Amino acid sequence: MILVGGPASIYLAEKLSKLSGIKLLKIEHKLFPDGESYIRFPGRVEGEDLLVVQGMHPPQDRHIFQACLLAETALDLGARSVSLLAPYLAYARQDKRFLEGEAVSAQILLKLLKAVGYQKIYTVNVHSPWIAKNSPIPLIDIHAEEALAERIEGRDLKDLVVVSVGKKGECMARMVAERLKVEYSVARSTRDKETGEVKVELGDLKLRENVLVVDDIISTGGTMAKLVQVIKAKGAKRIIAACIHALMIGDAAERILKAGASEIIASDTIPSEYSEYSVAKPVLKKIVEEG
Amino acid sequence: MILVGGPASIYLAEKLSKLSGIKLLKIEHKLFPDGESYIRFPGRVEGEDLLVVQGMHPPQDRHIFQACLLAETALDLGARSVSLLAPYLAYARQDKRFLEGEAVSAQILLKLLKAVGYQKIYTVNVHSPWIAKNSPIPLIDIHAEEALAERIEGRDLKDLVVVSVGKKGECMARMVAERLKVEYSVARSTRDKETGEVKVELGDLKLRENVLVVDDIISTGGTMAKLVQVIKAKGAKRIIAACIHALMIGDAAERILKAGASEIIASDTIPSEYSEYSVAKPVLKKIVEEG
Repeated sequence: MILVGGPASIYLAEKLSKLSGIKLLKIEHKLFPDGESYIRFPGRVEGEDLLVVQGMHPPQDRHIFQACLLAETALDLGARSVSLLAPYLAYARQDKRFLEGEAVSAQILLKLLKAVGYQKIYTVNVHSPWIAKNSPIPLIDIHAEEALAERIEGRDLKDLVVVSVGKKGECMARMVAERLKVEYSVARSTRDKETGEVKVELGDLKLRENVLVVDDIISTGGTMAKLVQVIKAKGAKRIIAACIHALMIGDAAERILKAGASEIIASDTIPSEYSEYSVAKPVLKKIVEEG
Repeated sequence: MILVGGPASIYLAEKLSKLSGIKLLKIEHKLFPDGESYIRFPGRVEGEDLLVVQGMHPPQDRHIFQACLLAETALDLGARSVSLLAPYLAYARQDKRFLEGEAVSAQILLKLLKAVGYQKIYTVNVHSPWIAKNSPIPLIDIHAEEALAERIEGRDLKDLVVVSVGKKGECMARMVAERLKVEYSVARSTRDKETGEVKVELGDLKLRENVLVVDDIISTGGTMAKLVQVIKAKGAKRIIAACIHALMIGDAAERILKAGASEIIASDTIPSEYSEYSVAKPVLKKIVEEG
């Protein structure tokens, strides 16, 4: 197998190669002045099984089209197979037709990736479990909760509780808390249909000195900021806002820190200044398992 | 048939509908804060033949992915067929593998459009005639030279000559000049491989008071500015810089005007302040011909 570092995720392909010793091919890439992508394989791929590492964080559509160019070109150059590791999968929040006539973009993206020749897709903590179940192409969801918990373990925080929000948050909070051998609590959030404002109720939280708030994605930071705010108001001393995928749109970080978080930590599925832990280990483990 | 106005080209779909009386469906569209596209068909398309109008000017990859969403969603909603009118086709300059390992992006884009369900593609003055001949999906190239000539006729310019550059330019200059019943001349351009600088030789140009310089695309404006400059130096009084597709990257317009052009005109394949003539008529004519 050869790892192919796509323009969006060369940093992660490098980590994977270093950890595993698997050969790495770094894609030559540039943008033309008009914004079109140029892609070139700098070495032979004939007869090889390739794992293209190419995330789909913003600019999503550019990274998606590059993923298409990479698969088609690899196969055209004689690669035996191409699989995709997209640590962050775009359009995962558009997984159902809520209103008549809507595009089910998540499904369409997966069909597209199949059409260009990918055999299977690895991703990390996919936002909608529904997608993984109904994917037109084998979609392997890798969990990064352990990697997050490991990072927190390293801090040696006493008197800690894990908090998340919603059904999916509960699953994540449980996994992190179990590994850390601490308790967890799940908040309820409701969104006002008129104003769009998010309200959060903490429920039966037994407050500790340190609170680790976890969610899969921080996008505009609205939900996370609200959660941090109510926990702070309850008297928490130190709050860590943690996520897997840090989209951090606009002033997301500022909102969360202002609400009372002492720091923000995220994985490296999306490269950012908050990428404090890596998904490389769980990714490699899964790749080896799947063969 | 129903015209579907995609987010990139609703203005053109409206013109086509007004001219022809063909029913128009304007796609509901927004961008989420993270930059993902939301697409919704606001009316029934079951059993209908659709012509999706969706150009691929910058941001190209966003417009390409939207075109994919439109086709897949239309077919999922029961449309009988979908064709695409992409007045500007992206990636047309990457039509061959110049260096080993390169993506032939033009070919891959066309395969993608076929894979998502388009039956055929209409486009205007495709940059590479090679693409049209080798397309994996029927690609119908519509010429806008007459529409450009008509716009110039309206100016009633006496003593005019048409100038272009290169082989493809020659074809375009001839078509425009024949319609205007004036002479044309073709310049030669060479690009210095080291510095990238463009040099232009005018050849046997018989200068007139008014010069119409034509090219298919104005991108960064380098070639057009050079051409205008040498014609101005020869003593032309008035130079009109004309193109079909006005990408106008960065300070392209400024460069061309500074070089001595009195104005810039372009079609509406890419919406801009230079869109002085429309491709709607030749497009409709071809659509009717093709059925």
